[in-house]
Amino acid sequence: MPEPKQQLNIAMVGSGFIARAHSNAFHQVGHFFDAPFSLRTKVVCGRNQAKLEAFAAQWEWEETATEWECVVTRPDISIVDIAVPNALHAPLALAAARAGKIVFCEKPLALSVAEAGEMADAVGDRPNLVWFNYRRVPAIAFAKQLIEQGRIGRVFHYLAHYFNQSGIDPAKTNTWRYQRAEAGSGVIGDLLSHLIDTAEYLNGKISELSATTHTFARGRDVDDATQVVARFSNGSIGSFEASRFGTGRRNGNGFEIYGSKGSLAFELEEMNWLRFFDASEPPSLQASRHPYSSVFWKPGHIIGYEHTFIATLGDFLMALAKGEEFHPNFRDALRTQTVLAGVESAAASGIWKTI
Amino acid sequence: MPEPKQQLNIAMVGSGFIARAHSNAFHQVGHFFDAPFSLRTKVVCGRNQAKLEAFAAQWEWEETATEWECVVTRPDISIVDIAVPNALHAPLALAAARAGKIVFCEKPLALSVAEAGEMADAVGDRPNLVWFNYRRVPAIAFAKQLIEQGRIGRVFHYLAHYFNQSGIDPAKTNTWRYQRAEAGSGVIGDLLSHLIDTAEYLNGKISELSATTHTFARGRDVDDATQVVARFSNGSIGSFEASRFGTGRRNGNGFEIYGSKGSLAFELEEMNWLRFFDASEPPSLQASRHPYSSVFWKPGHIIGYEHTFIATLGDFLMALAKGEEFHPNFRDALRTQTVLAGVESAAASGIWKTI
Amino acid sequence: MPEPKQQLNIAMVGSGFIARAHSNAFHQVGHFFDAPFSLRTKVVCGRNQAKLEAFAAQWEWEETATEWECVVTRPDISIVDIAVPNALHAPLALAAARAGKIVFCEKPLALSVAEAGEMADAVGDRPNLVWFNYRRVPAIAFAKQLIEQGRIGRVFHYLAHYFNQSGIDPAKTNTWRYQRAEAGSGVIGDLLSHLIDTAEYLNGKISELSATTHTFARGRDVDDATQVVARFSNGSIGSFEASRFGTGRRNGNGFEIYGSKGSLAFELEEMNWLRFFDASEPPSLQASRHPYSSVFWKPGHIIGYEHTFIATLGDFLMALAKGEEFHPNFRDALRTQTVLAGVESAAASGIWKTI
Amino acid sequence: MPEPKQQLNIAMVGSGFIARAHSNAFHQVGHFFDAPFSLRTKVVCGRNQAKLEAFAAQWEWEETATEWECVVTRPDISIVDIAVPNALHAPLALAAARAGKIVFCEKPLALSVAEAGEMADAVGDRPNLVWFNYRRVPAIAFAKQLIEQGRIGRVFHYLAHYFNQSGIDPAKTNTWRYQRAEAGSGVIGDLLSHLIDTAEYLNGKISELSATTHTFARGRDVDDATQVVARFSNGSIGSFEASRFGTGRRNGNGFEIYGSKGSLAFELEEMNWLRFFDASEPPSLQASRHPYSSVFWKPGHIIGYEHTFIATLGDFLMALAKGEEFHPNFRDALRTQTVLAGVESAAASGIWKTI
Repeated sequence: MPEPKQQLNIAMVGSGFIARAHSNAFHQVGHFFDAPFSLRTKVVCGRNQAKLEAFAAQWEWEETATEWECVVTRPDISIVDIAVPNALHAPLALAAARAGKIVFCEKPLALSVAEAGEMADAVGDRPNLVWFNYRRVPAIAFAKQLIEQGRIGRVFHYLAHYFNQSGIDPAKTNTWRYQRAEAGSGVIGDLLSHLIDTAEYLNGKISELSATTHTFARGRDVDDATQVVARFSNGSIGSFEASRFGTGRRNGNGFEIYGSKGSLAFELEEMNWLRFFDASEPPSLQASRHPYSSVFWKPGHIIGYEHTFIATLGDFLMALAKGEEFHPNFRDALRTQTVLAGVESAAASGIWKTI
Repeated sequence: MPEPKQQLNIAMVGSGFIARAHSNAFHQVGHFFDAPFSLRTKVVCGRNQAKLEAFAAQWEWEETATEWECVVTRPDISIVDIAVPNALHAPLALAAARAGKIVFCEKPLALSVAEAGEMADAVGDRPNLVWFNYRRVPAIAFAKQLIEQGRIGRVFHYLAHYFNQSGIDPAKTNTWRYQRAEAGSGVIGDLLSHLIDTAEYLNGKISELSATTHTFARGRDVDDATQVVARFSNGSIGSFEASRFGTGRRNGNGFEIYGSKGSLAFELEEMNWLRFFDASEPPSLQASRHPYSSVFWKPGHIIGYEHTFIATLGDFLMALAKGEEFHPNFRDALRTQTVLAGVESAAASGIWKTI
Repeated sequence: MPEPKQQLNIAMVGSGFIARAHSNAFHQVGHFFDAPFSLRTKVVCGRNQAKLEAFAAQWEWEETATEWECVVTRPDISIVDIAVPNALHAPLALAAARAGKIVFCEKPLALSVAEAGEMADAVGDRPNLVWFNYRRVPAIAFAKQLIEQGRIGRVFHYLAHYFNQSGIDPAKTNTWRYQRAEAGSGVIGDLLSHLIDTAEYLNGKISELSATTHTFARGRDVDDATQVVARFSNGSIGSFEASRFGTGRRNGNGFEIYGSKGSLAFELEEMNWLRFFDASEPPSLQASRHPYSSVFWKPGHIIGYEHTFIATLGDFLMALAKGEEFHPNFRDALRTQTVLAGVESAAASGIWKTI
Repeated sequence: MPEPKQQLNIAMVGSGFIARAHSNAFHQVGHFFDAPFSLRTKVVCGRNQAKLEAFAAQWEWEETATEWECVVTRPDISIVDIAVPNALHAPLALAAARAGKIVFCEKPLALSVAEAGEMADAVGDRPNLVWFNYRRVPAIAFAKQLIEQGRIGRVFHYLAHYFNQSGIDPAKTNTWRYQRAEAGSGVIGDLLSHLIDTAEYLNGKISELSATTHTFARGRDVDDATQVVARFSNGSIGSFEASRFGTGRRNGNGFEIYGSKGSLAFELEEMNWLRFFDASEPPSLQASRHPYSSVFWKPGHIIGYEHTFIATLGDFLMALAKGEEFHPNFRDALRTQTVLAGVESAAASGIWKTI
């Protein structure tokens, strides 16, 4: 007969989209993991009583409460789970931690480093969790395993991106996520935070960075997009780009890792796949020795490559026949040379350069 | 009966890989384009006579020559095509231009802006061409067409990358491409130049940029990788990354464009495809109204999404049972918060920040 | 306050892989669907008491039982769910139906048409369900929606395949699924049944068919693979292929539909995607009018196509130089002609033909 | 200095699309293959003098001729290349063969086996070639190499398809390809012939087959689609499907091969890629041992799989609440059982069965 399990009662604060995902996990974990605990979805807290009751009924929470202050200190509660707008993370976590609870918190942890530091101190060594859930996509955990097995070798490049289109439609952006006071930041806390967590999980610490933020929507006080160029302490270089203006992308979170022994690529919207290039495979499998590999173009310059030259020349001759100017010409290439020189100069100075 | 065509005699300097691609275009253009010119592959110049004769025989050049100085001024030559290491572009182009020839030149145009400027002045208004051939990939020309038709709308983001693995194997890097004196730069002139040309072709001028360069191989005096963050004059923001340390990539040149009405994505290794997202399509085709779209998770948070939360919680409980520390915890999230604050600070200052 | 829900108690017979998927659905349905029922996982039946108790603990079944005969008639049970080997479907379903229960049954329904007929009669008009679950992949439901909206038009072709590799490793095939007495058939009941259900759901009734079965493993008394060619009553033609010898495929279930107005393609291993070709899109978006579409090869004969002819001719000339025979030559093509004539003859006769 | 090459003069009959591809190969082969022959595009024959001259000018044929009878016997001609409608293949090939020429012929070789036999006899042992060009796609030649290296092992399944949409638009089908007298057959000679040639090249002889043909367009006297089920002499089973009613497909020629040691998949529209599954790779790379592989569903039953059961049950409960009939129910499954029984019966009898 199975061992009796220790019961852990949960209080969750929040009843939005992410609270559904948390509730689901509380109910599902025991079906897949054989841990010696039995989780009980005891009480869910929120401001709107009617909405809360519907949520509790749907997600099998035993009780509802509209005052989180009382709930997080209840003696029958073992775990306090925070699934509310970012500005509430700190007060909730501090209260729960001080009441000795196990604290779970949505990401990003806080509005500021100061707040986050205070929260981390408050939970101290007691078990706690932050919902950077993408680390545990099976394919990402598999990537971690391959890295730890040495299959990637010395890492050269880490690239990550997170694009969705959530910030474009003004009808959908009048929420707390677009208010600095509530959210702390825009895409930085919302999307970039996932990329940073996954990156440091897979590739170690970032030691230095340069960055931009950009707000496309007029009057918005949070960032819509951010770009980060970084150096990791393992000697690899990184780049990160996140945006809420990625038209057509819904959850476009992915990365690429290039190393001396192999490379990896992942896209969340194809979450059940991990692409792995194994540089240790024999050349005969790297398509370098097929029957025509030495006959046509260089590997990677696939058949069809030559048409780009034919079309260039074709357009040149058609322009010549008509007495029209052809592009790209020396003047265009001079322009490109100027941009490339700007790249070298900006790289040398570490500061922005006008072209 | 077809019109007689004007004959243009070509002198090409160079007999390496790219000279094969040029030669191919000279022979093929008349088969596909109906221009009123007949190209004649008159003379190919190079240093190694034996190699040159084999090349001339293979690619149907009528004559060979080892002294380019004489060739580029020959009165029977209409077009001088430059397919040699970068350091020779300027002397050749200047001589040919001064001799009144039509000049074609491999990219990058020159070793420096000064050289490129002198070359552009020298060719003046005479027809000339720089082999930024990727503009004329049919799919890229199609992208340009869609942009000009207004199908992308206001552009938010332009992203481009070019990764190959040419710089990794030391046995293959003792060529002029890895000598600053011969090449001018590494990946910047070799790969980034293509990205910049395509970007300004599709998305207009870059107005400002920040950049890095990185050399992975010890003792090498050219850049192995570069990262560029840019602003375009149309208000969009750009990012570029190019590397010769992209393990497993052979010719990994691609871009993504996100705009108010649609988005585009392209990869050179799948050169016959262009991905176009049309934001004007009805919601019924954007997968937002299928029979279960309101039942499960948010669009993009595809079915299976919830397992990342279950696995997070499962691992937490297993760690709890064993008295082990779980990650990511508040301390990990504090670290992430610190990186995010670094991003905001670096973005505000425009300079690099140590984390 | 939410309406109170009617409680439905479930008895499930079986505790294998598919019983996990059923249990999961019983617990999860209320989290996603707002139906006026509350499901209670009352009792799970199986033969092995220890294994059963572990299963019940993991999947939150209140009771266990080893004698299904008593359970399926219990007055507190509303739903009997059958998740056992095929040979037990009929006795269980008949008993449950006669006891007035709602009966849910795994696919395939029965060992024979006779059994299935008896079972269908027994449940009569009482609510019942067969777990052809793939109909309800969101992307397939979306496909159905597009078909019903007329976006595919008159259907020409329906193609479906289901490949996995479950039958190859002898160490894994000593189960009931490889015994005719227990399973009724091999891949026909296991995999083809899903394809047929989905096909008739999406494309209407099959009116006629021709088929093969094949057993690769010696001594096995069930089919490892099957191929079906069919005519649908809507005038379209169909083909189906299913195999347990699809090396490397784990759950390779997919279909393609070609119609007068569009086409659809789906693969279960990329379950969150549906490919839809919309023939009503303007030619300018069908890549037929890009800048080089009239210059190079025919649409679909993508750039690079010509290399197949060059390589053919190149190999011919190399063989000619060596005095070796080249293939494919007239004799090879005569052979192909013979096979093609066999195709015409077999099609005319409707029977197999030896070539 | 390179060896002088033997000159071979070519006469080509035909000036349509495929004649362009042949002409291209004649000009290009020497650029890529180092054979001791120099090909000269001597004379092109056709009926329309004006069109012919334009063609000759574009593709560098030295002469034109409108009477092929004279041309194919000219003493200065070494190679006669046949690029005309199928009905002319035999008379041309016989005349050229009897004149002692090297004969190249477009596929399919002939209108009938008798014709093809006569042609094969006529060319006898003299060098000759049939343009089944797809064998020499580099990726297909690579597939052949992998098969010959034993990397696929014993073959179980060979599947091939060829879909285009050429037969749908009546405005484009008033050509010789849709006239039995001119073409011999429809899709059988046009597309299936390629599949058969590639199949026997990669997988050996077909020993038996069953087939269908179908004509969708009213009044057309050639086949629009064909389906073939086959047995190969190596014990593997095959299926082939070709159609000119594949809406949205332009050149959709592909195959899959499943064997005991690996599998291969290829699509012509992604001609630079070959998919190879290597069953000899360690389980750790077959995604069978990632950190959550034993926790969630069976390999291939990817995360998200369970939602198909939830949606099935959800729809059942919604139907139950409304008193509506749910599908698929026992009656639907009885229908499926009937189809499955039909499959077994048709397989046993080898003949078509009405369901």
